[in-house]
Amino acid sequence: MSETFAPYQKLLARMREVALVGSTGSMLSWDQETYMPPKAIDYRAEQLAFLSGWAHRQFTASDVGGWLEACEAHAFAPNSVEAVNVREWRRQYDRQARLPVALVEAMERARVLGREAWVQARKASVFETFRPHLETILDLNRQMAEHWGYEDSPYDALLEEYEPGVRASALKPLFAELRREIMAILPGAVAWSESTPADLLQGEYPEAAQQAFNREVAAAFGFDFEAGRIDTTTHPFCTGLGPRDCRITTRYDEKDFTQSLYGVMHETGHGLYEQGLLEEHYGTPLGSAVSLGMHESQSRFWENHIGRHPTFWERWHEAACSHFPGLRRLTPDHIGRAVSRVTPSFIRVEADEVTYDLHIILRFEVEVKLVEGQLSARDVPAYWNENFREMFGLEVPNDRMGCLQDIHWSMGSLGYFPTYTLGNLNSAQLFAAMHKAEPDLEAQLRRGSYEALLHWLRSRVHHQGCRLRPPELMVFATGQTTQAEFHVRHLRRKFLGG
Amino acid sequence: MSETFAPYQKLLARMREVALVGSTGSMLSWDQETYMPPKAIDYRAEQLAFLSGWAHRQFTASDVGGWLEACEAHAFAPNSVEAVNVREWRRQYDRQARLPVALVEAMERARVLGREAWVQARKASVFETFRPHLETILDLNRQMAEHWGYEDSPYDALLEEYEPGVRASALKPLFAELRREIMAILPGAVAWSESTPADLLQGEYPEAAQQAFNREVAAAFGFDFEAGRIDTTTHPFCTGLGPRDCRITTRYDEKDFTQSLYGVMHETGHGLYEQGLLEEHYGTPLGSAVSLGMHESQSRFWENHIGRHPTFWERWHEAACSHFPGLRRLTPDHIGRAVSRVTPSFIRVEADEVTYDLHIILRFEVEVKLVEGQLSARDVPAYWNENFREMFGLEVPNDRMGCLQDIHWSMGSLGYFPTYTLGNLNSAQLFAAMHKAEPDLEAQLRRGSYEALLHWLRSRVHHQGCRLRPPELMVFATGQTTQAEFHVRHLRRKFLGG
Repeated sequence: MSETFAPYQKLLARMREVALVGSTGSMLSWDQETYMPPKAIDYRAEQLAFLSGWAHRQFTASDVGGWLEACEAHAFAPNSVEAVNVREWRRQYDRQARLPVALVEAMERARVLGREAWVQARKASVFETFRPHLETILDLNRQMAEHWGYEDSPYDALLEEYEPGVRASALKPLFAELRREIMAILPGAVAWSESTPADLLQGEYPEAAQQAFNREVAAAFGFDFEAGRIDTTTHPFCTGLGPRDCRITTRYDEKDFTQSLYGVMHETGHGLYEQGLLEEHYGTPLGSAVSLGMHESQSRFWENHIGRHPTFWERWHEAACSHFPGLRRLTPDHIGRAVSRVTPSFIRVEADEVTYDLHIILRFEVEVKLVEGQLSARDVPAYWNENFREMFGLEVPNDRMGCLQDIHWSMGSLGYFPTYTLGNLNSAQLFAAMHKAEPDLEAQLRRGSYEALLHWLRSRVHHQGCRLRPPELMVFATGQTTQAEFHVRHLRRKFLGG
Repeated sequence: MSETFAPYQKLLARMREVALVGSTGSMLSWDQETYMPPKAIDYRAEQLAFLSGWAHRQFTASDVGGWLEACEAHAFAPNSVEAVNVREWRRQYDRQARLPVALVEAMERARVLGREAWVQARKASVFETFRPHLETILDLNRQMAEHWGYEDSPYDALLEEYEPGVRASALKPLFAELRREIMAILPGAVAWSESTPADLLQGEYPEAAQQAFNREVAAAFGFDFEAGRIDTTTHPFCTGLGPRDCRITTRYDEKDFTQSLYGVMHETGHGLYEQGLLEEHYGTPLGSAVSLGMHESQSRFWENHIGRHPTFWERWHEAACSHFPGLRRLTPDHIGRAVSRVTPSFIRVEADEVTYDLHIILRFEVEVKLVEGQLSARDVPAYWNENFREMFGLEVPNDRMGCLQDIHWSMGSLGYFPTYTLGNLNSAQLFAAMHKAEPDLEAQLRRGSYEALLHWLRSRVHHQGCRLRPPELMVFATGQTTQAEFHVRHLRRKFLGG
């Protein structure tokens, strides 16, 4: 970073300012989800629209274009800090510069209002309350896709925002293959689960005790509570508000501690990625997560490959009993089977490891059809319910349990969902590679010793920031690009015994 | 507001933007006090410095000067919305335009770091930890005073920020008189208190029960919880984060519910002022509180004139008992005497109605001497302890109980303290005027019916915003400018029986 090429320094200063205003907006959004009084919503929408408009103008100002050109003409060493940042800034600049300020601000407003309408709609299970907001969001997303441009489908232009380089035409066969494999595994996985009653873990788990246990687990995974916290929201999330400020949220069910616990493990995975980014590169691509699919690989890693590993409850049973004495009646193996129980169900975030991706595949289909104009917002509930029946063999009882369950569309995000499945595939692939590198991995997990794992993820993924693009990062970390086979093999081994 | 004079509209748009960024900064500060993880402090300081620098530049830009001149040359009707806003913007502009951006940003940084150092210093009761920060803050305040200019004392230039038009030379005799009167009342007030044991109310008051009762009282006073909330901090405060977003904080002692309860009543008074400002004028002087002394008059009104009124516990005893069954052993009169008990003590925010202003008078003396260079930061503890002994007859055991107890200096505020005593005087004067206007005031209080009182305050104070300057506003509301006699008469009647 001793580089003193003036245009680069100007670019860096500008981008750090943009990141600072962006993180301020994230702070306002976090507050909106956690503590903001309801009547404050309109002014909060104004604030967010203003900040995002300001950041957009600063990011896309013509001087930025000039600095980028000067940097591109300059001979930065390949793969140097400067070369990587300039490459990514150029990509982002080209995308953002194509969006008119009015569209960016309209999107920000639609997000805030849409989010609030979704909360109400979901509460009352009335899709109609949310429909006009979905229409606005869809319309704005299509406008954005037109500004960005695409080859095959406007959906690709949206997807590019979350998972650079991935195309719907590539996801379709991958998801079709995954669907076939899951369908083949599902009956055996359900059979594996049948010896464990669905209500085995039902009991009394006071919220305060859950909070204490969750913190213990998150801290053991490596989450730094001096640089982060856990709050309560309807829809769990993780957000980085600065180089040492990462906030996780979860929700509690006092009859079932596993919802909040596995939610916290998941968000802790995201949080460890955020906390593992290099602080000296904060506000630049080198200090930023590379994609949502890679982010999700981290959450799924800790939630499924660690938290649902056969040895997990050997390590944590005693600690859990000190918070929840009722668990003494069960063996670690009982609990392990209960938290891995497979059964088709309605809610994505509560879905098991096997059926989870079926939820994503359904949303992916809905999104593509919405964006490509083959489905109208009005028809989403009917389409959802019909296809859900086909995939899961279940009748959706209401929209709250169906198409209103997720926050994403209300936040303006279309093209986000597929990254969840990419995350699942990546997490299994990373775990397999780590296992190869650490032959005594199972012994470490049995001891609850997570330092070596975290160190592996830090050096292979977190510290890399955007140095490599997602496919090359997977090659760097695991030896090959994202494959389905590791996830499928993980499921077969776990549920079919080989 | 149908005025379409272009320079005024431009000014208005700019000022609303400045207010929006200012309220965003307030949101970050609120988070810093309530929920922010400790390691986030450095980046938070950067964020606040950036936002405040930006707002300062926008507020003091040369185009603002031009618009102001155009507006001043325009014939706005006297006392019209436009005339009032232009008058106040001019006053603020002249003050702010004189400060260099670097000084404003340095002050913002010093505030954030000073606040954090103060928390640590207070915790450890080590003044030395805070001293260098106080020196920086003092130095920056003096620089500001030089930029602003003054006639007699640099202290006046600082005071002007909090209580426009008030001068140290006017406060000195007023405070000397008040001190004499308080000293005359004090022995009788202490005697009045002696029949009530100091630990009469000591008991078990779970935090959750206190929170529930506090909310009931605040809601009865008129606080809108859909547009506000109560959180927990070391030092209670109230902050307006937007037209419908007012946040109060308090702290809890599970052995003594009165600390949090009277703290909440106090902050609710501030909150009712904020919630009573006219929303359509948000971000302009007409929709802003007129001064800290007037703000404090509102908090003191609800805390002391309502919450410590002899009838208060007749209305609230039963409600309190449903949260704190232990209070059934006491009569309303017992509780009323206990919460009004007078006894010299160390902590300002826990002080009784009689000795409270002695705490302020001491701080005022320290501040004036610091700013005028007659006292160095290093000598504050010794000066404090010596003078405290003289005024209160008590030996300060440590700095935590002495000069480190208040947050204000750590937040960069010098010249703020005298507004507390102005608030006390104003609150008594407002109560007396209201009593004249509402002869059955006591019956209303006995019933716990606060609507008419709040309505009176809304129309006489809250809705006025900055239409009138503080002295004229007191004339408008009560018939005369701020006097000491109403407060003194209130104390004499309450504690000496006439």
